Formats: sequence, C-alpha cells, structure tokens
Amino acid sequence: MPPHTPLLTPALPSLRAFPHANYVDVKEGWIKLNANEAPYPPSPAVLRALHKALERGGEALRRYPEPASPKLKLALASHYGLLPDQVILGHGSQDILEALIQTICQKGDGLAYFKPDYPLYSFLAEKYSLRPLAFAFSQNLASLPLEGLSAGLLWISSPHWPTGFQWSITAIRDLLERFPGFVVLDEAYIHFGGEEATLSLLADYPRLMLLRNFSKAYALANLRIAYLLGSPEVLGALERRLSVYNISSLAEAAGLAALQDTAYYAHKISSLKAQRKSTLGFLHTLGWHTYPSEANFLLTQPKDLHGHTSPNLALQVYEYLKSHKILVRSFNEEPLTDSYLRISIGTASEMTILHHTLKAYSQGLC
Amino acid sequence: MPPHTPLLTPALPSLRAFPHANYVDVKEGWIKLNANEAPYPPSPAVLRALHKALERGGEALRRYPEPASPKLKLALASHYGLLPDQVILGHGSQDILEALIQTICQKGDGLAYFKPDYPLYSFLAEKYSLRPLAFAFSQNLASLPLEGLSAGLLWISSPHWPTGFQWSITAIRDLLERFPGFVVLDEAYIHFGGEEATLSLLADYPRLMLLRNFSKAYALANLRIAYLLGSPEVLGALERRLSVYNISSLAEAAGLAALQDTAYYAHKISSLKAQRKSTLGFLHTLGWHTYPSEANFLLTQPKDLHGHTSPNLALQVYEYLKSHKILVRSFNEEPLTDSYLRISIGTASEMTILHHTLKAYSQGLC
Repeated sequence: MPPHTPLLTPALPSLRAFPHANYVDVKEGWIKLNANEAPYPPSPAVLRALHKALERGGEALRRYPEPASPKLKLALASHYGLLPDQVILGHGSQDILEALIQTICQKGDGLAYFKPDYPLYSFLAEKYSLRPLAFAFSQNLASLPLEGLSAGLLWISSPHWPTGFQWSITAIRDLLERFPGFVVLDEAYIHFGGEEATLSLLADYPRLMLLRNFSKAYALANLRIAYLLGSPEVLGALERRLSVYNISSLAEAAGLAALQDTAYYAHKISSLKAQRKSTLGFLHTLGWHTYPSEANFLLTQPKDLHGHTSPNLALQVYEYLKSHKILVRSFNEEPLTDSYLRISIGTASEMTILHHTLKAYSQGLC
Repeated sequence: MPPHTPLLTPALPSLRAFPHANYVDVKEGWIKLNANEAPYPPSPAVLRALHKALERGGEALRRYPEPASPKLKLALASHYGLLPDQVILGHGSQDILEALIQTICQKGDGLAYFKPDYPLYSFLAEKYSLRPLAFAFSQNLASLPLEGLSAGLLWISSPHWPTGFQWSITAIRDLLERFPGFVVLDEAYIHFGGEEATLSLLADYPRLMLLRNFSKAYALANLRIAYLLGSPEVLGALERRLSVYNISSLAEAAGLAALQDTAYYAHKISSLKAQRKSTLGFLHTLGWHTYPSEANFLLTQPKDLHGHTSPNLALQVYEYLKSHKILVRSFNEEPLTDSYLRISIGTASEMTILHHTLKAYSQGLC
C-alpha cells in the first residue's frame, strides 16, 4: 500500500456546528449582553480560594484531581438538604446531558423538548441520532400531548430559554404525573427565579433530575462547573459515563467558596432582579412585547414607529445596538423568536445606557 | 398515576467503574509514585499566567471561554510546525477519545488495542458497545495479525502504558502500511521519550492521529488539557463532537505559558531521565526484570531471595513500600503484569529513599 493512502473507512459523518452565541473578545467600552453572563465578578472568597489553590508554586497542578469531586458534591448536598449520592458534577451541562443520553437512550429513541429551547437539545438529538419530538413552546404544560408519547426522556429549561418563563411547582408535578419517562429540568437560571421548590419533587419522583450550574448566578461560566440533582440509583448509573477527572481542583475550590458566600451572591442577585424589573418596565413603556422573566435576561419584540414587528426590524435593532457597542442576541434562524431580541441583564450603568440607546432608536432618531 | 412511580423506562444499563489509580490525598511525608504525575511543579511562568488570568477581581471568570481555544491551538500548531486545523483540544484525553469513537465507530464495530494498555481503551470499548480486539502486548508490531482485521480504529500508547516501551518510527510506518483504518498513537508520555519523529508521519498518513497532553511532562494533570494532532479533514469532523466550551481560559493560559518555557521543562525532563536511568540501574542490581522505558515510570518485577517472582510477591512489595509511605501502582487484576509493579519517577531525594527501602526489602530485612 503506497503512502498517501486515502481514507479507507467510510466517510466521516457530518455534524453541524453547535450554534453558540458568537464569541466576542470584548473590547473596552463595549457592553456585552448576548450570552447571559453575570454582570458582576465572582465573590472575593472565590478569588482567595483560587489563589490558595495555586500556592506552593502550583504544586497542586501536577496532581490529578480527586475523581468525582467528593468535597464539592458533599457541599452541594448539604446546601440543598440532599444525600451526597443525589449529586453528580460535570464539566459544563453538556458533559452531564451527554452522559444522560448515553445511559438512557438508544439510537432512534425519541427525545422530547420545546421549540424554542436551549439549542444544545436539538444539537444532541442530532449528534446521537435520536428522534426529536419538539413541542411548540407553551406556558401551559397541561396542553402538551404527552399521552402515549414514545420518548423516554423529556428536557425543559425552567426558567425557560429564551423567554425566561418559569413553570410552577404544580405544573411540573402535573407533568411528572402524565409523563412516565425521565424528566430533566434544566435550571441553569434557577438562582434568578422566585423559588427553588422543584427540589421538593425529587423525593416523590426518582425520574426527575435538576440540572444546575455555577456559570450564571455564581459568575463562573469560565470554569464549567455543572451539577445534576436526582435520585441515587439514576445518578449512580450516570456518573460512570462521565469522564473520570472532569472537575479540576481549581474549579472545585472555586465552587466550594462560591457556595459559602451566600451574602455576596444574594446581594448581587437582588440588584440584578431590580435591573430586570426596571428594564422590563422600560420596554413596556416602548410598547414592546416582553416576556415576564425569572432569569437574567429578557426576550423582547421591537416595534417600529407604526407598531409593526418583524424579523427584519429585530435585526435592524440588533445592528443599531451593535453600532452603539451594545451586543444582544438575535434569533433570526428561529421562526417563533425571529422578531425578538434577547437582552442579558447587565449592571445598572449598562442598563441605563441600553435604555437611552433604545429610547433614541424608538423615537426615530437613528 | 400515583407519586412514587417506579421507573417505567428499561433498567439503566450497568457499566463498571473506570479503574483509575486509587486517589490519595497525599499527606505530608508520603512519596506518591503511583499515578505518573510529574515530580516537579509547573513552570513559574505558568503560575504568573494563572495569576494574571485572575486579575481584576476574577472578571474573566464570569465569561464563557473562547470556543475551540484558538490561541492555544495556534501556539501548538506553531510549536510543532503544523497548520492550526491540524490541532484540536480536549478536556483530558478521554474527551478526545470519546469524540473519536462517536465520529468513527458504530455499535458493534471492532476497536483494536494492546492488552495491557491504558485501561481507558477497554473501558470505552465497553461503554460504546464496541467489539474489543485485544492483542497481547508485543514489542514487535510486525507480528500483529492485522491483515483482514475487522476494525476501523487502532489505539496504541507509545511510550507504552505500563511498560514505557516506545516504538520506532519505522515500526509505526510499517503498521500504517499494513493497517488501513484510523490509528491513534496515545503519546501521553512522548515528552520523556527519545524522539518526536512520529510528527513527520502525519503528512503521509491522514489516518494517523497523535494524542498528547499537558498532564505529565508539563506538570498540569489537574487542568486536563489534552490535544490531538492529525489531518484537517479528520480533526474537523471530530471537533464538532467535542463539548463546545471544553477548555477554560485558565487552562488555556496555563498551556500557553507552559509551551513557551522550553528551558524550564527541558531541564526538568533531563533531570527526570537521569533519575530514570539510575533507578533502572538500581533495579537491575536487584536482579529484577525491568522494561527499558521512554516514559516517566518503570515497570519492574520483584524477585524474592530465591529468585522467584509472583503476583503475591508483587503485592507484598507493594504493601511493604506502602508501610514505608511510598505509593506505587500494582496490577493484580491483569495476568500479564500481575507480578510487576509500576513505579513513577520521582525527585532525586524520593528516588534515593525508594532505593534504600527496596534494598532493605531485598536483603530480607523486612
């Protein structure tokens, strides 16, 4: 066989790239409201913990991390009043969601989720050759045609991506009564929401899992610390499918410190909620339809001077904001949201600039 | 349906736990030679880069990392004289190996590897329901019955786990001529080896991939930075199966700084090789069969006073060392290596203590 042998195995299967928010290496003076990142830095206690983890010349870095991160697992269990084996940790939510598919699903199985919802769901359905069962987004879970649904797994983000809507505990319980398969509530934004009542459902429904992380409210998106809360039997099977050393000691130290500084984060979250409320009020004064949100973002539908909405208008406002160094998120590929923009809640001064910029736009000054 | 609904989906498939070296939270005074970790800390430049990444109150931590880590990718490409799209990065080797299986293999396909070799290979074969095609370890690749082998993928660690044997460039080239599928050389320990000639094979064999990392020689096991070198067409397909944000900015900064401080690492690696040589010489004076090693460990077969070897004896020496606060790795579950111990190369003073302790043992003083 000569060198330059062509690939003799079958052509590699193609897979579209994951549609993440365009990464922007934020320059000084820009306002970045496109990726639902916290507008505040992590707690000073987190920084102290990280510096401590780097002491003694970074001696700890040459060692493997402790498999399955028992310290952070224990801290999370204690924080939520659960058993340690009701918590597993992942390198970002994707790590956990893939282990979940690998454990529960076979090729061709149905995976149920809303459309729109976090784009990772449809991406993973495609990656694992699952049959996507996408329901049109509805605030009324009771209307979902769940009876006889041939799916063993249902994923819902709550607060919902990208509307920010959070379902009540009663609605989730009713859903669990009607759907017999595994249910994952992706609660990436739960800490900005009104309640944490879903925790109380875990005891009654071993099929329920709550996916949370340190990325948003704890301001640690860079370190990729996600966790899943659920029943020991399900999580035990899942954990063996996660990579063995998935959380570095630095990430674990950061997570532990963040979890302890409740005062810092309570204050930051409370300020963020105040900004969310005032921005919602402001968007209403413009007459733009905006979803009530329990997350750190608002989904709003720009109107022109004649009261019309359209995908083109949304894109126009997106570009207008960008020309004023404000980045938000547009959804021009998604029919149900293509006339909307998603705006992450920033700092008070960032929101003031946003309000002024949008006001100028809506008054036709652009 | 009442609460406490039993799981109605099929029972979750079981999977054995990955047999990683037992994690030990090393106490003061212990000598840890069981996990092939570097006996030296990372370069001071790495520490400076990490502290810099944490500046401004950890401001960078609240942001998502840049997808696909283009800075580190570019630096690695330039380091090796490759194109940027000949490099992809993973959160540890497992991240990359799983993407590789997901891209190339179907359930039931053959996966070829040596026995023994890095236990992750057989673990992943089981996890993905692949047909394991395990060859007995042989330093003579020409003897492998590769013709007509029904496997599209072959994994070999070189330097080999756990013997430390490194195959010649000629042997690898011959292997590639005989085997038409994808070949992954897991070169986790390559930086301790005698050459990096395999790089030159990439141009001729787009089916070849080299898996490397920052864990061992760069003393950064904790940060989980692995990378794969190969052809743009194969790596492009693989990268879409990796998680989107798999390398934190901290890990990227550490990797970049490590790659630049060639003088520091060249010195450390050279000292390690000297320790490896003197320990090999010492084990030979004991009359223990020890593999010549191009890695940062030695696989040695303890002999008793009568010149006998056995799994029991290996275990006895393991326990003896442990009672002297020295941890090495035993393989009592693996027939071909169960009478051997694997000893990671430590610092000069750690090796001196090891030599004294083993000498005392071999003189029957225990």
